[in-house]
Amino acid sequence: MNIIAPLSPSRPRVDDALRALIANRVPGHSLDAPFYLSQQVFDLDMEAIFARHWIHVAVEPDIPEPGDYITVDVGRHSVVIVRDDDQQIRAFHNVCRHRGSRLCQEQQGSVGNLVCPYHQWTYTLDGKLAYAEHMGAGFDKRAHGLKPVHVQSLAGLLFICLADTPPTDFARLRDEVEPYLLPHHLNDCKIAAQIDIIEEGNWKLTMENNRECYHCAANHPELTISLFEYGFGYQPSAANAQQLADFDALSQRLESEWQADGLPSSELDCLDERITGYRVRRLPLDRAGESETLDGRVASRKLLGNFQRADLGGLSFWTQPNAWFHFMSDHIVTFSVLPIAPEKTLVRTTWLVHKDAREHEDYDIENLTAVWRATNSQDRALVEMSQQGVRNPAYQPGPYSPYAEGLVEKFCNWYVGRLTAYCLE
Amino acid sequence: MNIIAPLSPSRPRVDDALRALIANRVPGHSLDAPFYLSQQVFDLDMEAIFARHWIHVAVEPDIPEPGDYITVDVGRHSVVIVRDDDQQIRAFHNVCRHRGSRLCQEQQGSVGNLVCPYHQWTYTLDGKLAYAEHMGAGFDKRAHGLKPVHVQSLAGLLFICLADTPPTDFARLRDEVEPYLLPHHLNDCKIAAQIDIIEEGNWKLTMENNRECYHCAANHPELTISLFEYGFGYQPSAANAQQLADFDALSQRLESEWQADGLPSSELDCLDERITGYRVRRLPLDRAGESETLDGRVASRKLLGNFQRADLGGLSFWTQPNAWFHFMSDHIVTFSVLPIAPEKTLVRTTWLVHKDAREHEDYDIENLTAVWRATNSQDRALVEMSQQGVRNPAYQPGPYSPYAEGLVEKFCNWYVGRLTAYCLE
Amino acid sequence: MNIIAPLSPSRPRVDDALRALIANRVPGHSLDAPFYLSQQVFDLDMEAIFARHWIHVAVEPDIPEPGDYITVDVGRHSVVIVRDDDQQIRAFHNVCRHRGSRLCQEQQGSVGNLVCPYHQWTYTLDGKLAYAEHMGAGFDKRAHGLKPVHVQSLAGLLFICLADTPPTDFARLRDEVEPYLLPHHLNDCKIAAQIDIIEEGNWKLTMENNRECYHCAANHPELTISLFEYGFGYQPSAANAQQLADFDALSQRLESEWQADGLPSSELDCLDERITGYRVRRLPLDRAGESETLDGRVASRKLLGNFQRADLGGLSFWTQPNAWFHFMSDHIVTFSVLPIAPEKTLVRTTWLVHKDAREHEDYDIENLTAVWRATNSQDRALVEMSQQGVRNPAYQPGPYSPYAEGLVEKFCNWYVGRLTAYCLE
Ligand code: FES
Ligand code: FES
Ligand code: FES
Ligand SMILES: [Fe+3]
Ligand SMILES: [Fe+3]
Ligand SMILES: [Fe+3]
Repeated sequence: MNIIAPLSPSRPRVDDALRALIANRVPGHSLDAPFYLSQQVFDLDMEAIFARHWIHVAVEPDIPEPGDYITVDVGRHSVVIVRDDDQQIRAFHNVCRHRGSRLCQEQQGSVGNLVCPYHQWTYTLDGKLAYAEHMGAGFDKRAHGLKPVHVQSLAGLLFICLADTPPTDFARLRDEVEPYLLPHHLNDCKIAAQIDIIEEGNWKLTMENNRECYHCAANHPELTISLFEYGFGYQPSAANAQQLADFDALSQRLESEWQADGLPSSELDCLDERITGYRVRRLPLDRAGESETLDGRVASRKLLGNFQRADLGGLSFWTQPNAWFHFMSDHIVTFSVLPIAPEKTLVRTTWLVHKDAREHEDYDIENLTAVWRATNSQDRALVEMSQQGVRNPAYQPGPYSPYAEGLVEKFCNWYVGRLTAYCLE
Repeated sequence: MNIIAPLSPSRPRVDDALRALIANRVPGHSLDAPFYLSQQVFDLDMEAIFARHWIHVAVEPDIPEPGDYITVDVGRHSVVIVRDDDQQIRAFHNVCRHRGSRLCQEQQGSVGNLVCPYHQWTYTLDGKLAYAEHMGAGFDKRAHGLKPVHVQSLAGLLFICLADTPPTDFARLRDEVEPYLLPHHLNDCKIAAQIDIIEEGNWKLTMENNRECYHCAANHPELTISLFEYGFGYQPSAANAQQLADFDALSQRLESEWQADGLPSSELDCLDERITGYRVRRLPLDRAGESETLDGRVASRKLLGNFQRADLGGLSFWTQPNAWFHFMSDHIVTFSVLPIAPEKTLVRTTWLVHKDAREHEDYDIENLTAVWRATNSQDRALVEMSQQGVRNPAYQPGPYSPYAEGLVEKFCNWYVGRLTAYCLE
Repeated sequence: MNIIAPLSPSRPRVDDALRALIANRVPGHSLDAPFYLSQQVFDLDMEAIFARHWIHVAVEPDIPEPGDYITVDVGRHSVVIVRDDDQQIRAFHNVCRHRGSRLCQEQQGSVGNLVCPYHQWTYTLDGKLAYAEHMGAGFDKRAHGLKPVHVQSLAGLLFICLADTPPTDFARLRDEVEPYLLPHHLNDCKIAAQIDIIEEGNWKLTMENNRECYHCAANHPELTISLFEYGFGYQPSAANAQQLADFDALSQRLESEWQADGLPSSELDCLDERITGYRVRRLPLDRAGESETLDGRVASRKLLGNFQRADLGGLSFWTQPNAWFHFMSDHIVTFSVLPIAPEKTLVRTTWLVHKDAREHEDYDIENLTAVWRATNSQDRALVEMSQQGVRNPAYQPGPYSPYAEGLVEKFCNWYVGRLTAYCLE
């Protein structure tokens, strides 16, 4: 009902001031303050970005068995994702078609049918309304099934799209990226740990933070044990020339070996060129070169897939607008960023190991999660300091490093481009 | 001062979008989401509904003695209700005429005069300014008395109206309903318990929840010990035909007995036909048939009024927009719903027993309050699930049951009708 | 960038309704409710009042040594005030010129340089950007220094001004007021205690409360031990004629003595006549006449400056819009009012004693702070009751006492005058 638009917080108001804000973004610089603060921009973000693109929210091992469901909040939306009895994964808006009660209350569970707690309207796992008492003879159950949400599994990574007509270039991404991901057999993994943190900052500051390692050396002592900063952009100088040359030689040698083993590793980057922007690359790790751990060695003795060697570095996969992933020989870490409010964001981190790996024997949860628990906590502090800073009326967008912040710039380009496209619709 | 209207949160802005929202309500369906979410609608509710109608807020036994006062918050309004030395009940805006300090700070108390804590301006219990220091020779105390609020006692139930000119049809309600209520002698009762709960939901979801028992069977195990669901609307079927017939026979038999005892019992319903909408009916109770308790027996051995028998069922009285009441032979329960914010509502429940009933001997507070403490808590959960659901952009108003949700529909009809009348003023 | 104005909460929208609200203020009465409630007025206050005037925020002894800094929040602004190696006091917007992180995180600290925690951009204490990694050859460090904020020390009291061009009449205030303040040698003091309280009320209610003692007799038992109410306006009557005459005689005698000792004491008042409005006066104290303590005697045995006698009464200094100060022979108390939100205000109280005074021997912190801890707490309660009152739609501005509320009226005159001037710009 269009008439309620101005009263509905889910329909963003795009006025001249907002159009001008978008049009006047200065390339190569951080965004103007309202992008990080304004409720109006946030509403636009939720509609133009999060309700129109493929959003990573979960992994198949979140719902391993038929009847398993999870609920995911994307802005004001709540979506229930369920594995049907025929193993098909389906997603629905988590709201009853009677008087609109939230249907599934828990973050996860296992059910036979989806039963509304209010008046017991009962839906089957494919969303059909199977039972509704007292509704009389003229009531058409077929017109009151759950509203579906698009869902795709990419080698076990689940993406939803709230739009009626999702971007079609996800198919192209699948063709290009699945060869990188499939060897890790994510669907043969189990979730070893999942931790949600709330950052008191705009989701874009979380994403910008993820898209550079300029801040790593001074802020991430645990992560930089295994992570080479050189992989993320560096200003060459006399002082670091030898190290850069060594890193390049190592990268080339390992990439050849990995490709020979059937593991695609070279960089694909269409972060700001496509609607469904992404980047993927397998990079060497430091020390033992096996995993993002405190000693560079595998955290789980049970290797994934059919891997015969542990030193496969780290396959990094980044997707616009809200996720990144690290696939290693022994475990996988996934990150999903979900906006809550202009200045509040959920970051969900999921650690996956082989489903046959035994806790205490094959892996230890403290050790498995040590690097990213510490790193997430450090990044949260940085995001929150940034949020405090952009709140200051004296904040002025500053220049990105041409060496170390190229992917941040691509994130902003993609974001501003997508808003622009929405406003032109 | 009209000029401040756009800056004042107490003056609602009624624009075209809001008019369209009201005009486009689909009968027989739950309301559009902005009715439950929008600050603009909430401001309108507070002005068009709560500042213009008779609002139940208390009972006479809240202020049994001269000098006793209570303060009640209705939206941004605070009202002090006081019993004067001549036993007259008066109500005033709880704000000092000097620099506007809140006058009475506590929810209840007992005073000789109403003295402002800031600079000691002193008002008598009839609202006159009796004393103000330092104000000089030209100061007119008579122009600075407290601003009165209309208040009425209906058989001991207190209703206030914040409007200058209250709806006049309260007199008609009084004529029709007092014969039902007076035999219970509420003014000879004392408050045995009073419990406030905060529901994280819009006040209309609280009211809609109250106006049906479609949700009772699955959600209210304690209440349905004594309450017959059949009294609140039911789709007839082969399976329940016998039970419905039994209930009708019981109702008719008891109603005849009660009327013969001088207790009006048959239904009066003008919920959506009058400005001061209400419904009243005395219904049989299940089990012992005496009271809404865990065994159906009286919770207080000291019967109210001049009652000689305990099995008087439950006299239910519902008023628009914000209250309902259960009068039994041994105790009375009153419910007052007071909006706090678009998504926050106070529900105050008051249990009254005969003023001569002795705690521990004649009644036990745990037993007296058990059913409605449990039921309120269950209803709070349902209201909060509904609020979460209507927040979802995928929420769409759904159909009310023609059998079980007729009074919900009447509530919405009354509400939308009153908003419409306000907008036409 | 002007185009972002409507999306930026730091740029107030001044529409016709707001202009009318300002234009229609009734002299001699408290302000209309939106002045205390509205976000729009608050945004205007922050821009027209707090970003355009000299604001007291600290004292020199807050940062006694080179490298010491404090951060101060004024609305959404955060300012870092630092003492440079050459003892010069400088202030900067506390936001990094790279991607805008808040620069200094703590309320106070001591540093060699100002280093951004995010990517280590490093600024010297005079605000110059000294170091920034990865920024490439074309990057101009000189264009990326910290943005300065104007700062002045008035006998050790620090005032900042966020405007590009601060009011010039601060020089005149300095000429007139420094002779009163300098004898107390604030720069030879140390901070004995500093307490922040949050008041749930608009900052103007805090200021109005400060500008009268009409409420003292009934609310401040500790303060009125040493403070004569007669110094703050009183309606003369037969009952108090003798006391008023006695007070006037005492005032005249002591003022003569103090002036003879080189201590200016007579009243200067330009509270509502200047952009940088202020009032100063030395008044007798009751009892021992030495200090604002529970017995009227000095709280610190080490007298300030070159004072030879302790009974110097209390030198009170009030500044628009946000501060007041009490200078006594043995200690100084300063008060800074900093708005946080329309209904939330920080009040920072600082107690200073001679830097050579020894705790436990020369002064006891409990005794030193007793009167103003109690008084602040009482005033907080009054401000919060006032805020609750003006929230009530029935609130109507009431008349100020012509005797006891003259300085409140001057505060409101100054405030409304400054808003008017801003709107005419
Ligand atoms: S709201 Fe779901 S069954 Fe009524
Ligand atoms: S505000 Fe009530 S006496 Fe001053
Ligand atoms: S934000 Fe300060 S160095 Fe990058
Ligand atoms: Fe990081
Ligand atoms: Fe219920
Ligand atoms: Fe005070």
